[in-house]
Amino acid sequence: MSRKVPYRFYLTEDQMPTQWYNLRADMKEQPDPLLNPATLEPLKEEDLYPIFCKELAHQEMDSKTRYYDIPEEILGMYKIYRPSPLIRAYNLEKELGTPAKIYYKFEGNNTSGSHKLNSAIAQAYYAKKQGLTSLTTETGAGQWGTALSEACAYFGIPLTVFMVKCSFEQKPFRKAVMQTFDADVIPSPSTTTQVGRKILEENPGTTGSLGCAISEAVEKATTTEGCRYVLGSVLNQVLLHQSIIGLEAKKAMEILEEYPDVVIGCAGGGSNLGGLISPFMRDKIVDGKDVRIVAVEPASCPSFTRGKYAYDFCDTGKVTPMAKMYTLGCSFMPSANHAGGLRYHGMSPILSKLYHDGLMEAVSYEQTAVFEAAKLFARVETILPAPESSHAIKGAIDEALRCKETGEEKTILFGLTGTGYFDMTAYSAFHDGTMKDYIPTDEELEKGFEKLPKVDK
Amino acid sequence: MSRKVPYRFYLTEDQMPTQWYNLRADMKEQPDPLLNPATLEPLKEEDLYPIFCKELAHQEMDSKTRYYDIPEEILGMYKIYRPSPLIRAYNLEKELGTPAKIYYKFEGNNTSGSHKLNSAIAQAYYAKKQGLTSLTTETGAGQWGTALSEACAYFGIPLTVFMVKCSFEQKPFRKAVMQTFDADVIPSPSTTTQVGRKILEENPGTTGSLGCAISEAVEKATTTEGCRYVLGSVLNQVLLHQSIIGLEAKKAMEILEEYPDVVIGCAGGGSNLGGLISPFMRDKIVDGKDVRIVAVEPASCPSFTRGKYAYDFCDTGKVTPMAKMYTLGCSFMPSANHAGGLRYHGMSPILSKLYHDGLMEAVSYEQTAVFEAAKLFARVETILPAPESSHAIKGAIDEALRCKETGEEKTILFGLTGTGYFDMTAYSAFHDGTMKDYIPTDEELEKGFEKLPKVDK
Repeated sequence: MSRKVPYRFYLTEDQMPTQWYNLRADMKEQPDPLLNPATLEPLKEEDLYPIFCKELAHQEMDSKTRYYDIPEEILGMYKIYRPSPLIRAYNLEKELGTPAKIYYKFEGNNTSGSHKLNSAIAQAYYAKKQGLTSLTTETGAGQWGTALSEACAYFGIPLTVFMVKCSFEQKPFRKAVMQTFDADVIPSPSTTTQVGRKILEENPGTTGSLGCAISEAVEKATTTEGCRYVLGSVLNQVLLHQSIIGLEAKKAMEILEEYPDVVIGCAGGGSNLGGLISPFMRDKIVDGKDVRIVAVEPASCPSFTRGKYAYDFCDTGKVTPMAKMYTLGCSFMPSANHAGGLRYHGMSPILSKLYHDGLMEAVSYEQTAVFEAAKLFARVETILPAPESSHAIKGAIDEALRCKETGEEKTILFGLTGTGYFDMTAYSAFHDGTMKDYIPTDEELEKGFEKLPKVDK
Repeated sequence: MSRKVPYRFYLTEDQMPTQWYNLRADMKEQPDPLLNPATLEPLKEEDLYPIFCKELAHQEMDSKTRYYDIPEEILGMYKIYRPSPLIRAYNLEKELGTPAKIYYKFEGNNTSGSHKLNSAIAQAYYAKKQGLTSLTTETGAGQWGTALSEACAYFGIPLTVFMVKCSFEQKPFRKAVMQTFDADVIPSPSTTTQVGRKILEENPGTTGSLGCAISEAVEKATTTEGCRYVLGSVLNQVLLHQSIIGLEAKKAMEILEEYPDVVIGCAGGGSNLGGLISPFMRDKIVDGKDVRIVAVEPASCPSFTRGKYAYDFCDTGKVTPMAKMYTLGCSFMPSANHAGGLRYHGMSPILSKLYHDGLMEAVSYEQTAVFEAAKLFARVETILPAPESSHAIKGAIDEALRCKETGEEKTILFGLTGTGYFDMTAYSAFHDGTMKDYIPTDEELEKGFEKLPKVDK
C-alpha cells in the first residue's frame, strides 16, 4: 500500500506476454460442441476447413493446449501498439468520492480504436501463412472491420467487409478508414449474395444485423476460391487471442501489488470480456480465488440477462454451425435506435457456459444511462469512450458507488475496449435529447425463442 | 548500439519532466517585441491583461526565466495522458529500406487527439486560478477547440469556440466532441461579433480562416466581463507549455542512448514544432550541437518558405497586437480545398526569428503527396495520422530515402502531433481522386504582402 501507483502503467516490451492463454484447458466442464445443422452431429476440426483456415480451425476446437506461443510475426505487429496501458482512474475515483480503487485496461490506442486488432492480426497472419488469397468478414459498429482491414493491409491480403447497414449509414467515416487500408466495404444485407437477397425480400427496409452480415460473409467465403471467413468475436479462437488483454492486465497489477475484487467488461459477442477475464477466471477456477466477474450488456440486446441457454445458429441466414449459447434467437434484430455495437443475438459459448455454471454475473443498462456515464468519464479521464466500452464504465461506476455506500475499499478492474471517435452521431443524439431507450418486450423475445432450432442435447 | 530499442518507449511517471523550458532564455537574439498597432510602441506585460490572464501575459513577455515549475494541478492532468510514447518506426524503416533510424513522438493518445491539450490545460488552469468566469478561442481543424473544451470542462470554466467555417462544415463530429465537453461552438465568420459581420460583408461566401476566427474570439473576450481569450499556437506561452514534448523526447532518447541528427515537425502556427525542438535547439545554440531542425509546411499556406519576415497583425480583423514574423499577410485566406489545419497566415515569432537567423530549415509539400505518405504510414505503423502531422511524416520519409541513397545511418526524430479520425472527409477525397493540390501564385502572395502594415522597425 505504500507503493505509489502511477496514473498510467505500461509493461516494458520485455515484460509483454509471449503466449496466449486457453481458458478451456482449465474449465472443469467444457462448452457443448458445435453441431452440424444437417446431421446434428458434433463437428470435427476438418469440418471447419471450408470456413476457417486450418490453424484457426484447430484453435477453435482445441480445449487441451493451455498456452499457445504467439508467433514472432504476430508479436512484431503487437509491439507496434502494445502493451496497452493499465490506468488508475484517480480522477474518476475522486469525482465519485468512492473509497474503491478503479483500474482500467485501455485498448483504444491504435487506428482500429479498439481491442479487435489483437485477434485480427492473428487471423490475418494464419490466413497468409496458409497461402489464402482473400478474406471476408462482417462488422457491426465498425471496429472489427477497421481492425481487420488494418491487419490485412499489413500482411497483404485482400478483404471484403459486410457492414451492418445502419452502421454503414451512421458511420460514413468508418468506411473511409477501411478504405484507407484498401478494404472493399459492402452494406449488409446486400444483393451481392443469395442469403442477402433472401433477407431483403423477407425484411424489406431492414437496417441489418450482425447475424445477417455474418451469413453474407460466410457465403462469399465458401463460394470463392482461396477465400476464408474470419470473425471478430464469439468464437473460441478469438477469446484465445484476446487473452493478451487479461494477461497484460494481470501482470501489470502484480507488479503494482494489486489484485481485483471484481472484473467488469462489456459483452456483445464476448471477445473483450472473454479476453480480459481469462487469467482471473483461471484463478477462480483453479486456485479458488475470490474474484467476481461481471458482464455488462445493453438492455436492448440482453442475451445474458434475458436470453435462453440453447443451441442456435450463429447467423441470421442459418448457414453456420449451431452453438450452445445464451441467445435471443438468430432472427432477433436489435432496435435501429440502439447505438454502437453489442448488437449480436448470441454470446460466446465459453462465456455462456461459465455464466450458466454460476461463475460469472451479468447486468444490463439502458443506453442513455450508459452515455451519461461516458460523458462523465470523458470529462475526468480525457478519453472519449466508445458506446460499447461505456457499458463497462457504467458498471464500474455503479460498483464504485456501492463501495461509497458501504465504505468498502474494493479494487475494481474494467476493460475500456475503445474510443468513440466514430460514434459522434450517437453522442449528438444524446446531447440533443433525441436518443431513446429501448427494451424489447417479453412477447418480442418469445417470438425469437419460438424459432430456436429443436435440438435434443 | 547493443541496446535493443523497444517499438514503444514510455518514460515512467517519476521520469516525467516537472518544468517547462523557455527557449528564449537561451536565444542569443530575442524575437522583436509585440507592438501596439495604434502607437507602434512595444507592448508591456500590463497591456496584455485585457486579453490574457495575468500569469499567461507574464509568460508571454518573459524571456529571462529559463525553467518554469509546472503547477501540481497541471501535472495532475498531464499524468492522465502523459508521458506520450517515443516510438521507433521499425516497420516504416523496413518498408523504406533505409539505414536511417526513425523515431517519432506520438501526441495523439488523448481525446483531443493531438498535442494541443498540453497548452490547453495550462491556459485553462491559470484562467481558473485568476477567478475568470469564461474563455473564448478559435479553432481551425478542430484539435485546439477540442483540447480546450476538454481542459475547460476539467477545470470548470465555460468556453465559446469560434470554429473556422470550412472545418465546421467538413467536420460535424468535431463539434459533437466539443459539445460533449459542454463548449459553445460557433462557425466563423459569424454575425455574433462586429468584426465577423464586417468580414462577411467584405467576403460574402468566405469559408473563413484562423485569422478571422481569432478576431471574433478576441472581440468577444474583450467585450465580456470576466472573460479572456486563449490561443493554441503562435504565442510564446504556447511554445513554453509545448516544450514538454521536446523535453520528454530528449529524455527518452537519452535513456535509449540516442540523439537525433535531424528533428522534423509540421508547422502551422508553430506550437508543436516549437515545443518539440526547444531542448534540441538549446543544445545547438548553447552547446554547438550539430543537429538539423526542419519545419514542414503545406505548399498552399507557405509562410516560412514564401512569406515575408515583417511586422503584421495576428488576425484578419486587425484587432490584435502586431508581431514580427514570417507572414503571408493577415488578409491571406488559404484555399478551401486545403485539408486540415496549418492554415494560419503567420508563424510563431520565436520560430520566425530562429529561421531568419539560419538556425533552422523549412520545406513545403503539396497535399496529395502528404496523404500518400499518411496512407503508407498508417499501413505499416497502425496509426491513422492527422493531415497536419502527415506533413512531418512526409518530411521524415524523404529524409530517410535520402539516407537510403547515401547510405547514411542518420537518426531522425519527428513529431506525430495527432490522429486523423476527424479528417476522413479529406481521406475520402484522397481515395476518390477528387483531392486537388493548390499552390498560390506569386501574384496572389504579392496582394497579401501589399497590405502589410508599414512599420519602421
